[in-house]
Amino acid sequence: MKPVLAITMGDPAGIGPELCLRALVEPSVRAVCVPVVFGDAAVLEEVREELARIGRQPNCAEPSVRVLDRAEWSRATAVDAPAVVDCAALAHSRVTPGRVSAECGRASFEYVQRAVEEALAGRVAGIVTAPIHKEALRLAGVPYPGHTEMLAALTGARRSCMMLWSPELVVSLVTTHIGYAEVPGALSVARVLEVIELTHEAMQRLAAGPVRLGVCGLNPHAGEHGLFGQREEQRFIEPAIQRARELGMEVEGPLSPDAAFTAQQRRRYSAIVCLYHDQGHIPFKMLAFETGVNVTLGLPIVRTSVDHGTAFDIAWKGVANPQSLFSAVRLAARLVEHRGARADALPAAAATAGESIRA
Amino acid sequence: MKPVLAITMGDPAGIGPELCLRALVEPSVRAVCVPVVFGDAAVLEEVREELARIGRQPNCAEPSVRVLDRAEWSRATAVDAPAVVDCAALAHSRVTPGRVSAECGRASFEYVQRAVEEALAGRVAGIVTAPIHKEALRLAGVPYPGHTEMLAALTGARRSCMMLWSPELVVSLVTTHIGYAEVPGALSVARVLEVIELTHEAMQRLAAGPVRLGVCGLNPHAGEHGLFGQREEQRFIEPAIQRARELGMEVEGPLSPDAAFTAQQRRRYSAIVCLYHDQGHIPFKMLAFETGVNVTLGLPIVRTSVDHGTAFDIAWKGVANPQSLFSAVRLAARLVEHRGARADALPAAAATAGESIRA
Repeated sequence: MKPVLAITMGDPAGIGPELCLRALVEPSVRAVCVPVVFGDAAVLEEVREELARIGRQPNCAEPSVRVLDRAEWSRATAVDAPAVVDCAALAHSRVTPGRVSAECGRASFEYVQRAVEEALAGRVAGIVTAPIHKEALRLAGVPYPGHTEMLAALTGARRSCMMLWSPELVVSLVTTHIGYAEVPGALSVARVLEVIELTHEAMQRLAAGPVRLGVCGLNPHAGEHGLFGQREEQRFIEPAIQRARELGMEVEGPLSPDAAFTAQQRRRYSAIVCLYHDQGHIPFKMLAFETGVNVTLGLPIVRTSVDHGTAFDIAWKGVANPQSLFSAVRLAARLVEHRGARADALPAAAATAGESIRA
Repeated sequence: MKPVLAITMGDPAGIGPELCLRALVEPSVRAVCVPVVFGDAAVLEEVREELARIGRQPNCAEPSVRVLDRAEWSRATAVDAPAVVDCAALAHSRVTPGRVSAECGRASFEYVQRAVEEALAGRVAGIVTAPIHKEALRLAGVPYPGHTEMLAALTGARRSCMMLWSPELVVSLVTTHIGYAEVPGALSVARVLEVIELTHEAMQRLAAGPVRLGVCGLNPHAGEHGLFGQREEQRFIEPAIQRARELGMEVEGPLSPDAAFTAQQRRRYSAIVCLYHDQGHIPFKMLAFETGVNVTLGLPIVRTSVDHGTAFDIAWKGVANPQSLFSAVRLAARLVEHRGARADALPAAAATAGESIRA
């Protein structure tokens, strides 16, 4: 039995709809799950027609994809073929590709709300999200800067963090969408330890061999023994690493951030814990641009996402690269498959840490 | 006439001495300059013997390299062959490889002082520095955290900045060896503009075609129009870019830091101006580990350096990679060659900016 995975359509005016059309018929997606797109059927049809008109993506019209309204979806007892759940969140289908609008922001939020409800109810095994637009969300009055914060709130997660996954490099982030200057004040031993634990638990599911984590320092050369900075390494990072080791995890650091991501160094670690957005995103995007996967750890549901934006400049043109979405679906399937199949490798405290990510 | 370039030996207990021995006989170094090592002859001889003993670097003993004491060097009227200037800065030659000491810190500082004097006097065309050790300097009471700050003070430079150069990527830095939390307070329109000007001037010497610079933002996604951070992009970076454009420079930004260094984006720029140490060093070291060159811009002398440390763990073993030093020498020769051959491409204000870097 392949797991059913919900794919949220993202902002209707972006590249989300065409990526969803591609995912529904992609063999590497269908091989590992039953993809069900949560979006607006009228938009998907409009994009399909537009792509057909300009001679792109002839496969989009494959007849095996069923469209269900929400009532039909609720009544469905077994989902064994790719489908679209029509959320009918847009008043009409006249979306202008590439234009920011409150209506599209509101709709993209609703797709996520519906998919999360289904995941919490156990009717889908996990969710994969296409890109939303921060400005559109803001216009719609949605009070979250991005998916990570939105999903933490919708699922009532006690703790969560963002992980970026690619075959070349995996990073997880202690802080994400806050200003540069706010980062030192957001650090604590508890938060760094939390992210180490969440990352370790995820890598036990995903890594082939034993899990070894690296944790970056905050200052140049990780502070060089207190020479630079406010001793954040000694105050927050070293105690968290020490505690993680006591819990049985193999963790190294604080690493000098500029040395941690060279080919030789990054291969030593299953994943590298980073303290702020660009410390992790700069190296990650250099290695996995357009193909990386964004994973939210700590939620009671499995959730992965593309690692790119709405790309309004190329929306509805059939040229957007779908690899990141395909990778995100495949990774979600792996997370679902290995769910519950770990935790026993670690003693008590770490097993507790694992619970918050288990569905 | 090939220019004479001073190469400072760096910390005697590190890999500096063996790199200098290699540089003195390296064809690609000799092709572009007359290399003169400023160091301790007794240490160089001891390292040479050790390497011969363990069967490494048989070329080190080439007889064409003369050793001059400081008096002989002062009397020399024409320097047309590789040489060592014996600074005799160490009381004796019993240096222990890999051990941090005040004596070695003091000596490494003295080599730089002597070389800078010669450069300011016009007796060498520029200087190339092997690595020094911050802790050894500190033990010796030398009041500079690194070469960049030391050279700015020794040459009385009004303004300066660090640039990292490689064929793949060039970055320059608005701030360097200060704590993460101190960076926002160190930003100003004047400082960002200064680094843009210094970088532009250097790239006019080094770039093949027209110079185009990128400037990174400070916050995630360059603040996303003020959504994150304290509007540092609007307060410091945009006005500096605007002023640089008025001065005739082609400058883009503030760039989203995590997108600026992908292969596609970085190729659009001759160099990328970064606001803090790791914003520039993380991507640079990923692309040019052990082969990059560190250049100090804004000095009245040409100065380049290796982009790695003293590597105490492999000192005197003949396994250190000399490519960064060779590259640093070749880049210094290019900077010397093109000195004064620019500035006319820009109107008045930028020409003024150029003066501080001209020897």
